[in-house]
Amino acid sequence: MKTRQKSWRNREEPGGTGRNRLRSPAAQSARGASRDSCCSTMRTESRIIWWLRWTVTVIAALLLGFVIGWSANHKRLQPNAVDKSTSSKYLKELLRGMQPDQIRRNLWKFTRLPHLAGTEQNLRYAEQIGEEWLEFGLDSVELVPYDVLLSYPNQSQPNYISIVDRFGGEVFNTSLAEPVPEGYEHVSDIVPPYSAFSAKGQPEGDLVYVNYGRTEDFSQLKEEMGVNATGKIVIVRYGKIFRGNKVTNAMSAGAKGVIMFSDPDDYCAAGVQTYPDGWNLPGGGAQRGNVLNLNGAGDPLTPGYPAKEYTYRSSIEKGAGLPKIPVHPIGYHDAVHLLKNMGGPTPPNNWKGTLDVPYRIGPGFTGDFKSQKVRMNLHTNNQVTRIHNVIGRIRGALEPDRYVILGGHRDAWVFGAIDPMSGVAVVHEIVRNFGLLLRKGWRPRRTIIFASWDAEEFGLQGSTEWAEDNAKLLQERAVAYINADSAIEGMYTLRVDCTPSLHTLVYDLTKQIASPEEGEEDISLYDSWHKRDNWTDDRDAPRISKLGSGSDFEAYFIRLGVAAARARYTKNKETERYSSYPVYHTGYETFELVEKFYDPTFKRLRAVAQVRAGLIFQLADSQLLPLDAEQYAASLEKYALSIARLAQRSPEQLAASGASFDALFSAVNNFTAAARGFHERPLRRDDPLELRAVNDQLMYLERAFIDPMGLPGRPFYRHVIFAPSSQNKYAGMAFPGIYDALFDIKNSADPPAAWEEVKRQISIAAFTVHAAAMTLTPPA
Amino acid sequence: MKTRQKSWRNREEPGGTGRNRLRSPAAQSARGASRDSCCSTMRTESRIIWWLRWTVTVIAALLLGFVIGWSANHKRLQPNAVDKSTSSKYLKELLRGMQPDQIRRNLWKFTRLPHLAGTEQNLRYAEQIGEEWLEFGLDSVELVPYDVLLSYPNQSQPNYISIVDRFGGEVFNTSLAEPVPEGYEHVSDIVPPYSAFSAKGQPEGDLVYVNYGRTEDFSQLKEEMGVNATGKIVIVRYGKIFRGNKVTNAMSAGAKGVIMFSDPDDYCAAGVQTYPDGWNLPGGGAQRGNVLNLNGAGDPLTPGYPAKEYTYRSSIEKGAGLPKIPVHPIGYHDAVHLLKNMGGPTPPNNWKGTLDVPYRIGPGFTGDFKSQKVRMNLHTNNQVTRIHNVIGRIRGALEPDRYVILGGHRDAWVFGAIDPMSGVAVVHEIVRNFGLLLRKGWRPRRTIIFASWDAEEFGLQGSTEWAEDNAKLLQERAVAYINADSAIEGMYTLRVDCTPSLHTLVYDLTKQIASPEEGEEDISLYDSWHKRDNWTDDRDAPRISKLGSGSDFEAYFIRLGVAAARARYTKNKETERYSSYPVYHTGYETFELVEKFYDPTFKRLRAVAQVRAGLIFQLADSQLLPLDAEQYAASLEKYALSIARLAQRSPEQLAASGASFDALFSAVNNFTAAARGFHERPLRRDDPLELRAVNDQLMYLERAFIDPMGLPGRPFYRHVIFAPSSQNKYAGMAFPGIYDALFDIKNSADPPAAWEEVKRQISIAAFTVHAAAMTLTPPA
Repeated sequence: MKTRQKSWRNREEPGGTGRNRLRSPAAQSARGASRDSCCSTMRTESRIIWWLRWTVTVIAALLLGFVIGWSANHKRLQPNAVDKSTSSKYLKELLRGMQPDQIRRNLWKFTRLPHLAGTEQNLRYAEQIGEEWLEFGLDSVELVPYDVLLSYPNQSQPNYISIVDRFGGEVFNTSLAEPVPEGYEHVSDIVPPYSAFSAKGQPEGDLVYVNYGRTEDFSQLKEEMGVNATGKIVIVRYGKIFRGNKVTNAMSAGAKGVIMFSDPDDYCAAGVQTYPDGWNLPGGGAQRGNVLNLNGAGDPLTPGYPAKEYTYRSSIEKGAGLPKIPVHPIGYHDAVHLLKNMGGPTPPNNWKGTLDVPYRIGPGFTGDFKSQKVRMNLHTNNQVTRIHNVIGRIRGALEPDRYVILGGHRDAWVFGAIDPMSGVAVVHEIVRNFGLLLRKGWRPRRTIIFASWDAEEFGLQGSTEWAEDNAKLLQERAVAYINADSAIEGMYTLRVDCTPSLHTLVYDLTKQIASPEEGEEDISLYDSWHKRDNWTDDRDAPRISKLGSGSDFEAYFIRLGVAAARARYTKNKETERYSSYPVYHTGYETFELVEKFYDPTFKRLRAVAQVRAGLIFQLADSQLLPLDAEQYAASLEKYALSIARLAQRSPEQLAASGASFDALFSAVNNFTAAARGFHERPLRRDDPLELRAVNDQLMYLERAFIDPMGLPGRPFYRHVIFAPSSQNKYAGMAFPGIYDALFDIKNSADPPAAWEEVKRQISIAAFTVHAAAMTLTPPA
Repeated sequence: MKTRQKSWRNREEPGGTGRNRLRSPAAQSARGASRDSCCSTMRTESRIIWWLRWTVTVIAALLLGFVIGWSANHKRLQPNAVDKSTSSKYLKELLRGMQPDQIRRNLWKFTRLPHLAGTEQNLRYAEQIGEEWLEFGLDSVELVPYDVLLSYPNQSQPNYISIVDRFGGEVFNTSLAEPVPEGYEHVSDIVPPYSAFSAKGQPEGDLVYVNYGRTEDFSQLKEEMGVNATGKIVIVRYGKIFRGNKVTNAMSAGAKGVIMFSDPDDYCAAGVQTYPDGWNLPGGGAQRGNVLNLNGAGDPLTPGYPAKEYTYRSSIEKGAGLPKIPVHPIGYHDAVHLLKNMGGPTPPNNWKGTLDVPYRIGPGFTGDFKSQKVRMNLHTNNQVTRIHNVIGRIRGALEPDRYVILGGHRDAWVFGAIDPMSGVAVVHEIVRNFGLLLRKGWRPRRTIIFASWDAEEFGLQGSTEWAEDNAKLLQERAVAYINADSAIEGMYTLRVDCTPSLHTLVYDLTKQIASPEEGEEDISLYDSWHKRDNWTDDRDAPRISKLGSGSDFEAYFIRLGVAAARARYTKNKETERYSSYPVYHTGYETFELVEKFYDPTFKRLRAVAQVRAGLIFQLADSQLLPLDAEQYAASLEKYALSIARLAQRSPEQLAASGASFDALFSAVNNFTAAARGFHERPLRRDDPLELRAVNDQLMYLERAFIDPMGLPGRPFYRHVIFAPSSQNKYAGMAFPGIYDALFDIKNSADPPAAWEEVKRQISIAAFTVHAAAMTLTPPA
């Protein structure tokens, strides 16, 4: 296909509809007025008087016509109520147009075969998606390739883990593959469970069990249990934090290998059967996933620059975020064999899972098994591989140079019916419906970009490379980025993570969407969500969370400062304590999983489609951008209080250091006043330049929180307000610079110096918030 | 004074003039049609027909009126020829309004007293300038303070250099001050010559003479003369490169102190007398100046952030760019004493100045003087000090959120009649004339910002801190920055350094300005300049050079990517080989120096005022921004050829490394095509959003060359096309990343690794040029 550009020029002149919208009401009253003037009567026969009358009437009519004409035209500049209602008519059509059946069909269509990043099948899906997007009516669609570092198991030397006896003989080996799900027995090319970017090697030694492998787990291991992980192979359970952080922690502790297993405690819901009879994880299933520590770098060999053909690539040794030790994931059936004979201290209760093993810490085995060791056999290869993003566009009628982006990944570990194809199915239906609107003569004010990213599973690479490639354009022109990864991870209610300036839009929009839940036919998605997940601590509204990372919005939001949001259907996190969803990243993410268990009517996915589409529509077509600076102010205040409270946990050290949050509070107050002033300022919507200037202030508000210096040691995390936790990539932290500096005090050899860094970070945060406030004041 | 804001709202409604224009073709044909309908004739007297007529006529009149009214209003959107000629009328008035006498008066007024940065007198001048700008009619003027690290001699312990005998007795001391210029004997507060930010200390040892202290001089010293500077005090002559680079080189060579002197060879023109009888440097004069190696950091204690009250400051030890050894400048009378008895090798001819000394290399003295040593006595203090920028504004009528900046510094080492007050006098006259235009009802399309920077002499601090403070606004809104440092440094012709996109504007404008030279009353400044300094190698036009650094445009151009230019009157660089101008940074930069020698009629300064003002006017008021992407393309091609040629100097190594410039040439070709396409694209100027989008592409073109990663080791130099040479801050280098990587090969211990860096830098340059090309293509 390559850069196929469908000509849209012969259709409607860009801006055509956008501009001739108004005319009507004044034209109608003009018609009425002329009827009135026809009702005048003649009284005398005098020729002179008659002529006078005639002349006066004609002049009056002329004048009246002039005034009406002038003011009719004057209104052309005011896309006002009429325009708004036109726009909202199209929004209603868009939302109404979403068909559960279509989403079902999309999901079926794109989950027939495994389509790992860099494989032929994933390119085929890219081509198919691109072609269908063109058929739906997008103005242009292109395939954009990059050559990035991926990682695959060696096909002739499988990865596995052995227990070996004193002679080196393998007495137990972990399985080489997951049992194939029923109905897919004919399918080849299912990649066995592996940890992408694992180092190669065959380390052999004693096992140490480190719970979830969090920083606090390693501290507890060392300080409370007196066990040293140096030179050991650590076995950790999946869950709580991003697996790459577990590996980083293990490397810091000196481990020479990492085994990760899914404990039923973390990957099985109570009262639910394992797949295919239910949606719990079977014992033979194992979670695939990359174990990078990229911190936003994208392709490990080209950090900061797009991985094009001519791009300079660093050596693998100098690559960003690559682990230096072997890592491998196993299912809980295999884990039992490794864990059951371990010796060493008894674990604390919160280290125990629900397998029938003692969860002893090690190092090594006990009793009869003392002489046995564990050997990892890892042969995974790193390989520069071509990947393909699909980029589709609807050209904006009035502001083609303003971009609203809906992006989600296409690559999957196997079939990926949840991750990401539930999202892909939704996006496909969204694009179809935007195509229908275009056919009805609608065209958005701003440009809409649809993106099907590749190689998200290998470290957000497709989206990050495209962001690097287009950074200069995005910085100047991107209004917002809406993420479209998995659209469902539970059956309970809506989940939205977004930047504070989008809170208001999310609430307004979800009030216009119906609840997908049975028995809730008459209530809105907002109400359904609100009653299930109220933001009690803060306010009486549905909970919205901070964006962390772990999906493709990262480069847009945290590196470039583009306002961003994600929305999906989720579980009840009060009662369902398992991590993610049980079969996450296994071969059991099939079409049937979604159809039988997660969303049999496909109405939940429709609701998510409506949310994602509605956000895009409103951001692309609203005359005034639906971004709310006052919501940002309210969030900043909350975050500032909370980070100051965190520092107060060591009141004496805080006092001794001389650190103070006054400058930050003062900046937040300043921002709050500027945000209020901004939204109170009168706006002449009929002045296109004044409107553009105000919209620019709204668009660039998120950008104002970007510091080109980056966070300490994480140059691609540049957002001063939000970044992934350095302890857990999945979690979003507010004021991450201050947070990390406070966190580092505990482990610092020189606490006064560590407090200096806290002071420096407070100063940077205060400056950034002040500077952001400046962007909201009148521009001159 | 503080943020005094004069209300401008009661004047003209912004946008008023910009809109009342044109007539649509539709309106004209409609008029024709209605005339036709009037031509129908009556045949019968029947009442019905009469009523028909009446009705038709009234409706026709109404329609006609409507159409006229509609189209009259339609014109409001099209700023066209009329607007242009109005604008050019005001430009003519602006240029004509510049008065040599006013410039003379300004120069006199602001050179009465020394006004070093951070002193009371420099604040007084700031207040006076601010008040007068308000009186001239600017909309607002504010004083913006920062607290930055400055450096002053210790008032109770003077700095000097001694020759000491074997008992430590001082047998010669350098002078503690310059002889005061005649007419200024009553003036106190003349700071003695010193090197700002010199380390304190009293190193004692043998002298080594290192010519200009360039990298090549130090190499020659070591390799050809076999002299080691480690542990020695080096004596270097001023000239050729920035003094801070000399100090960096001396530190790298292990020197423990640096003495800098002005050799008559470099600071006296042939056939000219010394001041006050001519404009040559007297033997008692010495060049002040900072010896920092900031690389764009601004305040050494707050790199990257504005030095506000709440800003975190690093310790002095960690400060950016501070030299670690004592440094001191002396005049040539004193230098003779230090140089005359030196021993060691005879120097090569190009190391010899024109003093009556042998210029022997050392180390140390010879013959009877062998036991004498040199001792430096340096007591200069670093001190956080408040400085003040003056910021004045004219609010743009149509695009207040677009900024055109005219900035120059106000602080001077002593009186500063050339540096910077010749620039200040010119800016003052420019502001007065813009005030006159405002009074006549003109208001620029975009906002104009006038800046009087503080502490330029201490490392461009005032301008850099303001850029840091306003970075987020400037990134989004700054159209161009015109620098206004010294307006004259010679008596020969115009000198312009600017970004390539401004070449065309500079040429067009100088054709509208008269030559200031006697006997050239009828020719333009362009022609006068052209005949004196033709750009022969490249093309038949006046020479324009690349921007280097050493003045306040640095943060705007090289850190933020704002299109920039500087203009001044200069010497004939073919025949006048001395560095800078002879009395540069001495107490002899008096009003009389300018009035008697440099510009007795003040017409040269007027010409410079016209150039600076004209640039600002055109950038602020042109409907379409006068920036030329094709000139940028032509320059990129020239630079690419030249850097590839440089690499070809080691053809075998180049071949062995596998480095290739193909990607760069391909990117430049791509850029050239994009630039051509951009300027050929039809533009509907009557569409305010389309015009704004095109202007945004022009404005952001310079920004596209910024790499947030910065140059290696110089994070605040972010412009991939232009940066100061790492060997000499004053010189502008094209493709500085590649240049430095090629330069490093020579000294690299691992040439293959050094060539890898060359390849990486070529790739970054190619990517950046490609990305810049993308910004010029249609936006969607």
